[in-house]
Amino acid sequence: MKQIIYLDNSATTKPCKEAIDSINTALTENWGNPSSLHSVGISAEEILNSCREACAKVISARSDEIFFTSGGTEANNIAINGAVLSRMKRGNRIVTTEIEHPSVLEAIKVFKDKGLEVVTLKPDSNGCVCEQDILEAVNEKTILVSIMLVNNEIGTIQPVKYASKVIKEKNAPALLHCDAVQAFGKMSINVCDLGVDLLTFSGHKIHGPKGIGVLYKKKSVHILPLTFGGGQQNSIRPGTEPTPLIAGLEGAIKALPDTASQQKIIGELCEYAKASLLNTGFAEINSPKNALPYVLNISVPGIRSETLLHFLDSKGIFVSSGSACAKGSLSPTLTALGLSSKRIDSALRISFSRFNTKEDVDTLIEELKNAVTKLKRS
Amino acid sequence: MKQIIYLDNSATTKPCKEAIDSINTALTENWGNPSSLHSVGISAEEILNSCREACAKVISARSDEIFFTSGGTEANNIAINGAVLSRMKRGNRIVTTEIEHPSVLEAIKVFKDKGLEVVTLKPDSNGCVCEQDILEAVNEKTILVSIMLVNNEIGTIQPVKYASKVIKEKNAPALLHCDAVQAFGKMSINVCDLGVDLLTFSGHKIHGPKGIGVLYKKKSVHILPLTFGGGQQNSIRPGTEPTPLIAGLEGAIKALPDTASQQKIIGELCEYAKASLLNTGFAEINSPKNALPYVLNISVPGIRSETLLHFLDSKGIFVSSGSACAKGSLSPTLTALGLSSKRIDSALRISFSRFNTKEDVDTLIEELKNAVTKLKRS
Repeated sequence: MKQIIYLDNSATTKPCKEAIDSINTALTENWGNPSSLHSVGISAEEILNSCREACAKVISARSDEIFFTSGGTEANNIAINGAVLSRMKRGNRIVTTEIEHPSVLEAIKVFKDKGLEVVTLKPDSNGCVCEQDILEAVNEKTILVSIMLVNNEIGTIQPVKYASKVIKEKNAPALLHCDAVQAFGKMSINVCDLGVDLLTFSGHKIHGPKGIGVLYKKKSVHILPLTFGGGQQNSIRPGTEPTPLIAGLEGAIKALPDTASQQKIIGELCEYAKASLLNTGFAEINSPKNALPYVLNISVPGIRSETLLHFLDSKGIFVSSGSACAKGSLSPTLTALGLSSKRIDSALRISFSRFNTKEDVDTLIEELKNAVTKLKRS
Repeated sequence: MKQIIYLDNSATTKPCKEAIDSINTALTENWGNPSSLHSVGISAEEILNSCREACAKVISARSDEIFFTSGGTEANNIAINGAVLSRMKRGNRIVTTEIEHPSVLEAIKVFKDKGLEVVTLKPDSNGCVCEQDILEAVNEKTILVSIMLVNNEIGTIQPVKYASKVIKEKNAPALLHCDAVQAFGKMSINVCDLGVDLLTFSGHKIHGPKGIGVLYKKKSVHILPLTFGGGQQNSIRPGTEPTPLIAGLEGAIKALPDTASQQKIIGELCEYAKASLLNTGFAEINSPKNALPYVLNISVPGIRSETLLHFLDSKGIFVSSGSACAKGSLSPTLTALGLSSKRIDSALRISFSRFNTKEDVDTLIEELKNAVTKLKRS
């Protein structure tokens, strides 16, 4: 791959050296089956224990509350399916938001189709779900509340902690699930402080490998499994654990910079990008002011997202026309924001990682200017 | 890891150089999200296409019949859950065998608990399910037949093709699922010839990485998904595809030697091991004569499996006391064979790969002799 400017880090990230080195050690030196009773197996089991500790530390959980999955999608499905099945006798309402990832919305839709009542909250024009709406939606028949921590398209931080407060106040039998895929490693997360029962994140958004995700499940909470097998991971998620990926996740986690200082650096980079974009006269900022600075949604009205994406692609600059999770579908998040269809049609998502620089932003701006000259002229 | 004699290849295998190299290329050079619309994504998508073709070729399928999963366990769960849910209106009987992997038996148990009729066939004393029993079990209300191709504990080859014939003859609405985890890469598999609708296999049993499995789904067959998300893999199995593992699987598949010649080599190695074991005077062979030679189940009556396993472990020789998929549970396969409890208590599974040699067998025999001297004396 030639030198590129990669600004699509919310879709996936480039695996870091630490992750790759750990993967290789697991592949070449510690490749046993963690369920084997002999020492080759026991060594491999240590990869699991060590990574569980690393994951738990980042979110202030216990290591026996960490379960490995094949990614964010499976983790969200296990959380939602497991929570609803285990609480179905206690109520019939699920509360979620319009701007969740498809793996949350589609997993919940299964239960809507089975007759459960699903309340899907709209965000306000700032891209945040209103606390008042949560308060009104959660009742004593609510068995699951699922709210993401950071939105994948515009970066807004959602009132997860408030939802936890409401569940307690309303005495609802609800479990609180939080999709933290876009938040993990980018902001401070404390599962106790947030008050969540289930929280999910993914390796490949933090310079770890694709194919590994994590479900945090509060120790005292019981959920039913989605898949069945040989009893691995307390039967919550059976199957031979993918030790190379788990080692890679640990490598990526250990390489994470201090969240607060890194957020400050990315914040400055994002502000620099915003100012430069507004300076062009043609770009508009869609991400609200208080969004996490790792995600910056913009529009260049008059040029369709995909046209601009492909123009930038030809210059070695990579951004997204929406979330990368499903090709071709309309963004429910931008629609919910109430943006004009012209602005939605021309939306681009720029997403930063610790490896991006101001020079990357400068080149992006330069090529956006070229694009406007060329594409609007033709 | 010091020089070891690894004879537990049915539990997991050491990743081969070709797999590791492919994984590293995917991690360092081709790490995009296959769903991204830009060229970094499109390059990553090529990994999927290329591996699908490699998988399809081995089992004489079409590449659009190949779906990536996180392993054999998930693949089996998707197949069973999907088949039963999609056919539930047409019948209520499931036919399977006592000697399936837990990921098959436990996934089927879910439907037994929901009221479906599950017929679980016992193998005969040769470790094979009788054709007559299949003929009697499958009726016009049967919606799923699930039979493994090669048993993971004793290596016996099951009459999958016959089951397909019976389903047709009985005009049953059943889909035929075959767990081919222990067969893939070790014997010739032709999905059309076998007559299966769904077939599953795993990367880490053929010197590929852990965390990747495959579901073959016949093009004309419809099954409902187990997880929901962003539409990847035709929504049969959504979630960002683990491109490093998929590349690794392709590497491992391309490094597979010719099945027939390799089976002959392993057959000779297995016969050599059997003769040497019988020569000791104390070892007994549990695997039936017509079993696939990759798996050799033996007993050393008088020494418990785990005691012997740990003794060998201390000498750098690694075998299994059963399948590695669930620590501590009794083997249903050996029980079904009708072996004495003394013999089951002392059973060891030796499982070969192309990297094993006669010298490995010689060392094993030597240390088994030492074990008998030391452990029976003490």
